[in-house]
Amino acid sequence: MTSAKAAADSMAPLAVTMGEPAGIGPELAGQAWQRRLQDGIAPFYCLADPAFLSSRFKTAGLDVPVRVISDAPEAAATFPSALPVLALDNPVRSGRAGAPSRDDAPAVLESIERAVDEVVSGAGRAVMTSPVQKETLYDSGFSFPGHTEFLGDLVTRHGLTARPVMMIASEELRVVPVTIHVPLADVPRLLTTGMIVETAMIVARELTARFGIETPRLAVTGLNPHAGEGARIGLEDRDIVAPAVLQLREAGVAATGPHPADTLFHDTARSGYDAVIAMYHDQALIPIKTIAFETAVNVTLGLPIVRTSPDHGTALPLAGTGRASPSSLIAALRMADRLSRVP
Amino acid sequence: MTSAKAAADSMAPLAVTMGEPAGIGPELAGQAWQRRLQDGIAPFYCLADPAFLSSRFKTAGLDVPVRVISDAPEAAATFPSALPVLALDNPVRSGRAGAPSRDDAPAVLESIERAVDEVVSGAGRAVMTSPVQKETLYDSGFSFPGHTEFLGDLVTRHGLTARPVMMIASEELRVVPVTIHVPLADVPRLLTTGMIVETAMIVARELTARFGIETPRLAVTGLNPHAGEGARIGLEDRDIVAPAVLQLREAGVAATGPHPADTLFHDTARSGYDAVIAMYHDQALIPIKTIAFETAVNVTLGLPIVRTSPDHGTALPLAGTGRASPSSLIAALRMADRLSRVP
Repeated sequence: MTSAKAAADSMAPLAVTMGEPAGIGPELAGQAWQRRLQDGIAPFYCLADPAFLSSRFKTAGLDVPVRVISDAPEAAATFPSALPVLALDNPVRSGRAGAPSRDDAPAVLESIERAVDEVVSGAGRAVMTSPVQKETLYDSGFSFPGHTEFLGDLVTRHGLTARPVMMIASEELRVVPVTIHVPLADVPRLLTTGMIVETAMIVARELTARFGIETPRLAVTGLNPHAGEGARIGLEDRDIVAPAVLQLREAGVAATGPHPADTLFHDTARSGYDAVIAMYHDQALIPIKTIAFETAVNVTLGLPIVRTSPDHGTALPLAGTGRASPSSLIAALRMADRLSRVP
Repeated sequence: MTSAKAAADSMAPLAVTMGEPAGIGPELAGQAWQRRLQDGIAPFYCLADPAFLSSRFKTAGLDVPVRVISDAPEAAATFPSALPVLALDNPVRSGRAGAPSRDDAPAVLESIERAVDEVVSGAGRAVMTSPVQKETLYDSGFSFPGHTEFLGDLVTRHGLTARPVMMIASEELRVVPVTIHVPLADVPRLLTTGMIVETAMIVARELTARFGIETPRLAVTGLNPHAGEGARIGLEDRDIVAPAVLQLREAGVAATGPHPADTLFHDTARSGYDAVIAMYHDQALIPIKTIAFETAVNVTLGLPIVRTSPDHGTALPLAGTGRASPSSLIAALRMADRLSRVP
């Protein structure tokens, strides 16, 4: 019975959100579908407005047939010959490439909510979210600092617990910022030993559970230049970060640090750990986007579902041209597939 | 007459400081001398304790003859057959590999002062400084946040003006942090429009004067994640950084920004500028040390002399082993040579 269920689970399709209609997300999904065979992409279906998708594919010069499905199980049968779409209740009203409109916020938000519903119910296997234009959503009353926090809220509406943690991962590097979309000036004030420990514990646990790394090695960065240089450049590394590393080690996690962040990301250094716990956004994102701009993937840990996302934005000026690279979105689909396979 | 003088100047040797005796600096200078022919390294001389150098080379298993010279002009004649050393008044008293001692601070500081004297007087052509152990110097009353600021002070003692600006440069990338060795918490408070403009103007001027770039393109980073995302994540990018970019453009500098820092350093992005003006230490140092850990060079702009330095520390655990890589120090010697050649 177990193996039959396992086989069924790993056949469930991946649920893909529409993302901002004015951005590159919709056409990238089409491009990914076109490359389903050559790139070995697992079956997926979009939560989207099918008429809008067809229209955008045409604009972008993509030959991608769209087929409306009534439920996820239909996706697998449809996927070889057409892009399966589960239609939203909210249509895309504006949908002009390059020109986000708050009129489309309801469809964008419904797509994310529905995708989470699909995966929580077991119909979909994992969520891959396309990039959104947060400014437009803010204007429409969306009150989360980002996609990640919204996802966390959505799963709790299903009565599930969530403590979302953003990881950016590529073949070369995995990074996790402890603070994310906050002003740099607030970082030292917000950072606590408990927050570093809590984040790192989730990362360690999921590196084992989802990535199959038996004893994950975590490298924790210092907050200040040179990790504070013996408390000569700021006290946080001594008073906040170092105690977190100690607590993690006492809890059995193979954590090291605080490490000077600037010397932690070159080829040789990267062989010494499985993930970096960084103190703030740019400290984590600069190195991975420098090394793996086209292939880095956003993975949300700490959720009861698997969620990935390409590590780029809506790239409005490229929308509708068919010229944006689908590499990161394809990498996100592959990561969603890999992390949600029953071992 | 002009060309005769030019020829004479470009023949002057490079002045190399001893650096921390407990660190890898001394042996790297020996390794660089050994590779003078294969790497085409211009003649240089060390400001050091010759007996200590000989002893360290022996410890590290390096066959490098040391010859004491009485002045810089002797260096060129000596260089082909031995490493020329101008002896310090202060001997190295401890000099144990891996174990810095404050007893050696006077020799370390004298070496830097003498090297500046040599270049200000015209005897040496440029200064290449070996890494120091700042903690030991702090204990001995050294009151500068780093080498760069000390160099600035030294040239003003000669009645020259200095506004030292630290650039880290490699073949792939040049970065300049506007704030440097300060706690991260102080960065938002310290950062001013004037400071960004002043730094960038010096960078633009020297990219033309020393690097031969006629119209330098400067990319200015934002302070906050996503460059503040339209003043939704912190106000500094709108209120401090953007006005600096505007002032620079009004002054005729090809500056752009504020750019989100995380997407500014991948291959494609790097082709769009000649240098990045970053807001703080790790924002500048993370990308360059990720890309060019072994070959990045520290260049001090804003001084009346050329000064370079390898972009690594004293690496105490490696000192005396002969196993540290001289790549960055050799790159620093080559950069000092290149930037101080009379055009």
